[in-house]
Amino acid sequence: MADDVRQAMLEDIGSRTPRMEELTRKIRNELAEVAECGDGFAVVPIQGSGTYALEAMLSSLLHDTDKLLVAANGPYGERMAQICRVHGLNHRALNSSGMRPVSAAEIEAVLQADPAVTHVALVHFETALGVLNDLDAVLAVASRRGVRVFVDAMSSFGALPVPMRNRPVTAVAASSNKCLHGAPGLSFVIADRDALENAPPGRSLSLDLAAQFREFEKSGQWRFTPPTHVILALERALASYRAQGGRAGRWAHYSAIAQAITSGLAALGIEALIESRFRAPIIATFVLPFGNEVMPAARLSQLLIERGFVIYPSVYKEQNSYRVGFIGELTQEDARGVVEATRSILVAHHCLPALA
Amino acid sequence: MADDVRQAMLEDIGSRTPRMEELTRKIRNELAEVAECGDGFAVVPIQGSGTYALEAMLSSLLHDTDKLLVAANGPYGERMAQICRVHGLNHRALNSSGMRPVSAAEIEAVLQADPAVTHVALVHFETALGVLNDLDAVLAVASRRGVRVFVDAMSSFGALPVPMRNRPVTAVAASSNKCLHGAPGLSFVIADRDALENAPPGRSLSLDLAAQFREFEKSGQWRFTPPTHVILALERALASYRAQGGRAGRWAHYSAIAQAITSGLAALGIEALIESRFRAPIIATFVLPFGNEVMPAARLSQLLIERGFVIYPSVYKEQNSYRVGFIGELTQEDARGVVEATRSILVAHHCLPALA
Repeated sequence: MADDVRQAMLEDIGSRTPRMEELTRKIRNELAEVAECGDGFAVVPIQGSGTYALEAMLSSLLHDTDKLLVAANGPYGERMAQICRVHGLNHRALNSSGMRPVSAAEIEAVLQADPAVTHVALVHFETALGVLNDLDAVLAVASRRGVRVFVDAMSSFGALPVPMRNRPVTAVAASSNKCLHGAPGLSFVIADRDALENAPPGRSLSLDLAAQFREFEKSGQWRFTPPTHVILALERALASYRAQGGRAGRWAHYSAIAQAITSGLAALGIEALIESRFRAPIIATFVLPFGNEVMPAARLSQLLIERGFVIYPSVYKEQNSYRVGFIGELTQEDARGVVEATRSILVAHHCLPALA
Repeated sequence: MADDVRQAMLEDIGSRTPRMEELTRKIRNELAEVAECGDGFAVVPIQGSGTYALEAMLSSLLHDTDKLLVAANGPYGERMAQICRVHGLNHRALNSSGMRPVSAAEIEAVLQADPAVTHVALVHFETALGVLNDLDAVLAVASRRGVRVFVDAMSSFGALPVPMRNRPVTAVAASSNKCLHGAPGLSFVIADRDALENAPPGRSLSLDLAAQFREFEKSGQWRFTPPTHVILALERALASYRAQGGRAGRWAHYSAIAQAITSGLAALGIEALIESRFRAPIIATFVLPFGNEVMPAARLSQLLIERGFVIYPSVYKEQNSYRVGFIGELTQEDARGVVEATRSILVAHHCLPALA
């Protein structure tokens, strides 16, 4: 996190003060501007992590008469199906390979075969292997078939466009601590106002999105104690976001970081797992050009952490691989640094004899 | 919040790093020490406000075969009944006046008349009017009748003893930002390990206390992104708590603040609403010695805020009243200051002619 965002957390605000109401109104409006969602949608912040927002979204907005098709190509899609199971929400799953986007044609085929389906849930960017789903294609299918879409935009919101205006979108869930560069502890749902106003009775007290929305609209206050410092961090982070040029600026920045890391690693023989047309500059899985017996990726990760570079374990167990994130406060120097550190570790450990 | 607690939030920690695991283990152990709960209980932190912890506690630990008696003498008790309604938990309510503690004898009478009841839920300190419930008496009744107790100790934990060891307690819910002086955004449940291990299937994904417990025990990690900065604030706040002498030290400090404010206001003719034997040095309702037509308490509140003193609206609408909190980083100077500011405002506005 940026220094100024952390510094913003040094202020104490009472939960029920006019200052807090003003701050809440401000971040709700600013998130709506980032979303370019128009007046038909409302931003409803939720205390807690992104999963809280996902659960609040699905469990609050789906009626007993609805049926959700969860199109999953990874663990985050599966998590939405899990939320449906826990709450007994009528749903069916369409599971597909994590190596590529969910097929809009397959979704359409299910919609054609099962006219009871009223909604589709899709993860915009699956961070597991690092695959960007084709939201536009799924929205086009939904329009054609007269169903509506829930989007898990946790890792994409703020960097990739999430079309909402004049699209069959019921709600989008996202978080303050991914592409917006705020602190963890706050998430939000941007939901269609009609869906909020006609929501069924809550299936949870804390995660009742419609009740949370009504209280914001009525009193401007949070129903339950808000994470005031985390909200201040988001306010500051949104100012930096605008200063960086908003979504276009952030996308350009992430793209340059991803380009530098991906091409630098490719020069070492470390290739991205996923085809480039299915990737996005958020996070990517990289495959080492040697097996676990030479050096497991987990060991490389430890050695990189010792040099100050955090990489992530891979979810792809079939090959010796790891993940590198491109978001957050990274600079070109960081990008060059992680590549150079990788090179020097692999050479020192005789993993890349050709380059040594 | 204390300066050092806010400063602690300036560190960034990755959610899945060894540092985070160590910090989580540390705060879980330290909260258990504060609770003096012994090995039979486990601390399960929950992302979100205190209500999240209450909902996680009741919805995760009550079986369909259980029946909960919610003993309510104010809105926080009623909130537990609301959680039961939302989740369809088998329960009955025993509502009583907010002016005094819930009667342990009345609870016993209900338990005698309704042998289906397996658990009692009680708010330790009802902050609405400021009434301390007699937890010891309720635990004694529970022991005698063979039922178990859930405690909402949100506003008392860390300042008042919450007996757990060798008591028929299933779980206690509390928060990091009340008597422990941490930041808002984190709450926790201290639950009987047997109850956690034998919990029914979760009724929520995010608020599944037993799943959260299992993951902490298995990997030492949070299931979903933790509010890292808020956790760092709690770590620092717990160090200050010990330095102040733990619960006894905090109780003595709050008591001295409450004494100074209560006696100072009494000298102005402003008396506490609740009998002194039912109060605790957490928050109290005070009644102005004149009606709304002279000066409404809300106006006094505004004028005090202008002078830097935050008081709270009263829930007691029958008289011209307001609430003063005694917890947090208050000094004797603050206590004298709020009394003197009250005096000078009331004299300047001719509300206290006898003293003018």
